[in-house]
Amino acid sequence: MQRLRRDPKELVEAARGGDRGAVARLISLVEEGGEAARDVGRATYPLSGHAYTVGVTGAPGAGKSTLTDRLISRARAEGQEVGVLAVDPSSPFSGGALLGDRARMQEHATDPGVFIRSMATRGHLGGLSLATPEAIRVLDAVGRPLVLVETVGAGQTEVEVAGAADTTMVVLNPGWGDALQASKAGLLEAADIFVINKADRAGAGETERDLEFMLHLSSPPDEWLPPIVRTVATTGEGTDDVWDAMARHRTFLDEHGLLERRRARRLAQEVREIVAHRIELRARAISAGPEFDRILQDVVDRRLDPYQAAAEILARLDQ
Amino acid sequence: MQRLRRDPKELVEAARGGDRGAVARLISLVEEGGEAARDVGRATYPLSGHAYTVGVTGAPGAGKSTLTDRLISRARAEGQEVGVLAVDPSSPFSGGALLGDRARMQEHATDPGVFIRSMATRGHLGGLSLATPEAIRVLDAVGRPLVLVETVGAGQTEVEVAGAADTTMVVLNPGWGDALQASKAGLLEAADIFVINKADRAGAGETERDLEFMLHLSSPPDEWLPPIVRTVATTGEGTDDVWDAMARHRTFLDEHGLLERRRARRLAQEVREIVAHRIELRARAISAGPEFDRILQDVVDRRLDPYQAAAEILARLDQ
Repeated sequence: MQRLRRDPKELVEAARGGDRGAVARLISLVEEGGEAARDVGRATYPLSGHAYTVGVTGAPGAGKSTLTDRLISRARAEGQEVGVLAVDPSSPFSGGALLGDRARMQEHATDPGVFIRSMATRGHLGGLSLATPEAIRVLDAVGRPLVLVETVGAGQTEVEVAGAADTTMVVLNPGWGDALQASKAGLLEAADIFVINKADRAGAGETERDLEFMLHLSSPPDEWLPPIVRTVATTGEGTDDVWDAMARHRTFLDEHGLLERRRARRLAQEVREIVAHRIELRARAISAGPEFDRILQDVVDRRLDPYQAAAEILARLDQ
Repeated sequence: MQRLRRDPKELVEAARGGDRGAVARLISLVEEGGEAARDVGRATYPLSGHAYTVGVTGAPGAGKSTLTDRLISRARAEGQEVGVLAVDPSSPFSGGALLGDRARMQEHATDPGVFIRSMATRGHLGGLSLATPEAIRVLDAVGRPLVLVETVGAGQTEVEVAGAADTTMVVLNPGWGDALQASKAGLLEAADIFVINKADRAGAGETERDLEFMLHLSSPPDEWLPPIVRTVATTGEGTDDVWDAMARHRTFLDEHGLLERRRARRLAQEVREIVAHRIELRARAISAGPEFDRILQDVVDRRLDPYQAAAEILARLDQ
């Protein structure tokens, strides 16, 4: 129990020394949100900015976990330490445990070079789109040079979460219309790399052609054109190609000075979201209480119209 | 052209004297938003609060327009004047004209006791959920005792718009799963009256039983239990029953003192939305410009974490 009471600064020090329990505790504090999460942020932020982050998204059942598992093995073969966040917006609990369908990843659980954590928001009011970058910075600050962020589904939140990485990978399967679905879900714009997993199934060629067609329609020719890689994650086929595509995209970002620019843009977006969120909370607080009730009575009695009432309330916000 | 330049107060006076062009112009000003819409609000709000409003929502093709048309005829048979707003969130333009599929309603177009207007948001930044109550107040202030608000679809906005009426009517069709769809769309909670239109088709009985079952699950027994009325709007069958259900609901609200309470709650909600919207605009303005760029540079350089940066920006909001 004493460990739980250690402050974030101490936890960060312990985590950097290899204490996995401290890493887990730091991420739990992020999930819980509030002041403790702010303390974690203050302790980790100055130490962060070194990890390369890769987001993995796509429809449920596409094989994201299996592919992520393969990429972990590939990173370990290079001697690289890796942190993995499995983000599930549909679940309010992570319990810090591995998700049920991540049994395969458990092979890595005893490897000190690998840290895997599922991630939910237990109390973080900003939701996963604000909590995930904080959790990434924990893994970054404690010294993981590579962080993989796998999302469970491909909804709006998942795409936002996975898209807020240095390299975003979208996993599809062969099948009529899968490329079109990806386009509708906004994955075409989010993807730096497309993976057609289960490529031993019928239709892989057609899906690749559809994707290529839509990519050529949407991308200016001088920018990064997302490569399309075929894999069979269950056998490991194609993992090296995905790994190479990741490396090529990283080199591309570096050589064009895009990595720093992208990261700055993401930070700007994050700051804006925090500001908007804080203001929303404040507006909610103002729109309640006796003074609000008094102003509202004037509206009901037709002495003030709703816009005049809003102006009165906003004038109080400024005091 | 001179008529267009008249100020809202003059327009309201003309509209109350029977000038239909002035009514149309007032609603156009509401659609456009901005200061002109505020002026309209200041002129109409003190005169409003007398009209009874009925929202009509449901999936596209359910027969809402045809039913609304029947209700207009029914109101006219009672000698009641009526205003109709056809709200279409999917269209940015109304042009003040009747929508294409509202040909039937055009029969009423020459009746001075009927005023029909389709409604979109051309410039109103608060969207239809804020523009619609303002437009209703125009019709209310110029003396329409009954205002029908028909929405084109049954999306979130449409349900909100139609739900912001004194009586909300949800139009379904017979068919397997239609009741379940209504429940998923949140229509079960929004509805004061259910209409099963096209009730001459197979499955009307089953849809009614499904609805009853779900209503009994969700409603406390001592409150208003939404009646389920069967209609064939194309022939007019059942229109009287819908009309009677509307009257019964109105009486119920009156007798239980709920009408004033509901209206006060809606006004409170409207004021809150305006406040939130105004604050959002202000936050957007703050999250841009040279000062934001300077703070962001501190974030990029790791001198401030994103939450500290947000706090600095919010401190400026308070100045």
